[in-house]
Amino acid sequence: MSFGFRVTHTEGRARAGVLSTAHGDVETPAFMPVGTQGAVKGVTHRDLDSVGAQILLSNTYHLYLRPGDDLIARRGGLHRFIGWNKPILTDSGGYQVFSLAERRTITEDGARFRSHLDGTEHMLTPEKATDIQSQLGSDIAMVLDECLALPADEPAVRASMERTLRWACRARDRFLALRDGLVPGVVSTNPGQAQFGIVQGGVHPDLREESAKQTVDVGFEAYAIGGLSVGEPPEVMYDVVSHTTPFLPGDRPRYLMGVGTPEDLVEAVARGVDMFDCVLPTRNGRNGQLFTRRGRINIKNTQFAEDEGPVDPDCECYTCRTFSRAYLRHLYAVNEINASTLNTLHNLHFYLDTLRRIRESLRFGRFETFKVAFREQLGH
Amino acid sequence: MSFGFRVTHTEGRARAGVLSTAHGDVETPAFMPVGTQGAVKGVTHRDLDSVGAQILLSNTYHLYLRPGDDLIARRGGLHRFIGWNKPILTDSGGYQVFSLAERRTITEDGARFRSHLDGTEHMLTPEKATDIQSQLGSDIAMVLDECLALPADEPAVRASMERTLRWACRARDRFLALRDGLVPGVVSTNPGQAQFGIVQGGVHPDLREESAKQTVDVGFEAYAIGGLSVGEPPEVMYDVVSHTTPFLPGDRPRYLMGVGTPEDLVEAVARGVDMFDCVLPTRNGRNGQLFTRRGRINIKNTQFAEDEGPVDPDCECYTCRTFSRAYLRHLYAVNEINASTLNTLHNLHFYLDTLRRIRESLRFGRFETFKVAFREQLGH
Repeated sequence: MSFGFRVTHTEGRARAGVLSTAHGDVETPAFMPVGTQGAVKGVTHRDLDSVGAQILLSNTYHLYLRPGDDLIARRGGLHRFIGWNKPILTDSGGYQVFSLAERRTITEDGARFRSHLDGTEHMLTPEKATDIQSQLGSDIAMVLDECLALPADEPAVRASMERTLRWACRARDRFLALRDGLVPGVVSTNPGQAQFGIVQGGVHPDLREESAKQTVDVGFEAYAIGGLSVGEPPEVMYDVVSHTTPFLPGDRPRYLMGVGTPEDLVEAVARGVDMFDCVLPTRNGRNGQLFTRRGRINIKNTQFAEDEGPVDPDCECYTCRTFSRAYLRHLYAVNEINASTLNTLHNLHFYLDTLRRIRESLRFGRFETFKVAFREQLGH
Repeated sequence: MSFGFRVTHTEGRARAGVLSTAHGDVETPAFMPVGTQGAVKGVTHRDLDSVGAQILLSNTYHLYLRPGDDLIARRGGLHRFIGWNKPILTDSGGYQVFSLAERRTITEDGARFRSHLDGTEHMLTPEKATDIQSQLGSDIAMVLDECLALPADEPAVRASMERTLRWACRARDRFLALRDGLVPGVVSTNPGQAQFGIVQGGVHPDLREESAKQTVDVGFEAYAIGGLSVGEPPEVMYDVVSHTTPFLPGDRPRYLMGVGTPEDLVEAVARGVDMFDCVLPTRNGRNGQLFTRRGRINIKNTQFAEDEGPVDPDCECYTCRTFSRAYLRHLYAVNEINASTLNTLHNLHFYLDTLRRIRESLRFGRFETFKVAFREQLGH
């Protein structure tokens, strides 16, 4: 089985569809829980199954450092190594190099950096990022893009966008060479791997348009919108998405990277986006912040100490079916591991259920109605 | 429903039976996972269901301090508060006061101590320990016993054993007064609660005999053997158990507190013990030590870095059915929460499955055969 995408329903610019990968299908719009080091923090794979996760995101930077892509390749690839047989998308490692690694130097060749773990020196190039992901054998690999330090003026954004384009060409060449078995020493553990290009260009419509058109010209299986949700107001992000999606092919999925709040997801779907990933449900869950249809609550708050109700009365997740806010507050207050597990489980269920409701509304031509009701319930 | 016990099969001094409580039945011999603060660290209640846990132990000291037995009583008792509808046993709080609390002073009245959390002063008496457990509403409450500082000479052990007996009388009086509704201000959230006495006496056969006989004279629903697994060699512990169980009524379950290794459990069953609790499977799981039929392994060891096999090829738990030693080692090495969850799940399954196999062997009159094979497989 190889990569494919089929739009089944549309309403305005919003679409429902099915993404096919070497490890099975994913209904879109889709949300990908983040399993940084080959595991989603606090929840097991069967917990993920129970909340309806259809695809995982995993981080190339972390897996490259530990346990290493060579080891994972020897063990047959990431799916087999982590015991997850559904689709996996890996990022390029670039974002972590730019945000986490130490003493990084960016040149046209790539990014030289020191590991945040042990200080060892490494070099991440477009080719290397492609090689690592080939060894990991994810179903969807991402090209290495430059993550610009903000704030940046338009010339700097343009220069970075153009470098990202040159890197995209190199990454694609490498991807095709790997597919043809022309790179000795690098194992392709997933012959059905697809590669996505990434549109950059900051908040500048002309740069986004240029980046989109030229990235499409390079020719990838599909395309992502990067460099958003980095501090700009939501409306600015929505405008950039609105402006960018028309330049991306309608018969390919569109992936908005690192976004966002539940509201962001609904707004982006309305603007033609099909795929999302974000650490909000997992990271906030571990910090005691829970998403509900009526907004977020902080479970550590004293007001919940004797609250017998579930986190969200409309939620059917294991946490809400079984436990009270009072118990969840206790678990958080006494620092039990179960606090992370149960909170993360609820938040992921909330995100995945929101996407499920979006897909269902699209199937019945009622996405706009859903969107209005969703915002009203949140008090917007 | 109220407390009861029925022996269904015997072989030598070993017995299989059924313990009945206000929250359902427990097959014996039984192992109780430790849910210190109303949760077993690293695993959810449904994980516990999946490994066959039939009864939980929870710690009175911790729950008394946070969130407090008053709050739990207002929420309808511990079962309801933590969302666990099967049997629960609570300890008296004494062990933690003696091992964890600060600046403790023991008098005939009880134990004065400061909380290890915030230094607040508290007093735990036989009556108070009974009151707290009444408010928690566990199915089985334990009397407050004195935990002797070791090493101690025989006169000190005798004095402590005799104090424990006097405390047992006071605890029983209080328990009966609570049952009759004669203690204003204390809520009994579980009318079917049973109370167990505790036999002390160190490693001295005559003291153990005296303690057993006199504790039985006080008259409890059943009896525990305390003060073991505190550093003495296994053979000494086995001898004390051998010597003590004949003085405990055959129609009541016998609970060996805080014991022990899988081998200890098998040996104690052979000597007439029916119930166990121990932190070994959970604590060691979090530290990367895994129990298998062929002995323990430390999953952090480099030798497992590329080991594709399961932790224990004979094990049918979720961890062993799904994940390799290589992945579990990776999770441990990168400090993922899932390491605690998957390791704990396996260890609890191992313990509960060992008890299941013991019960099955007793039903078929093959416990002695099981015991020999179990020890041989462990290399003894």
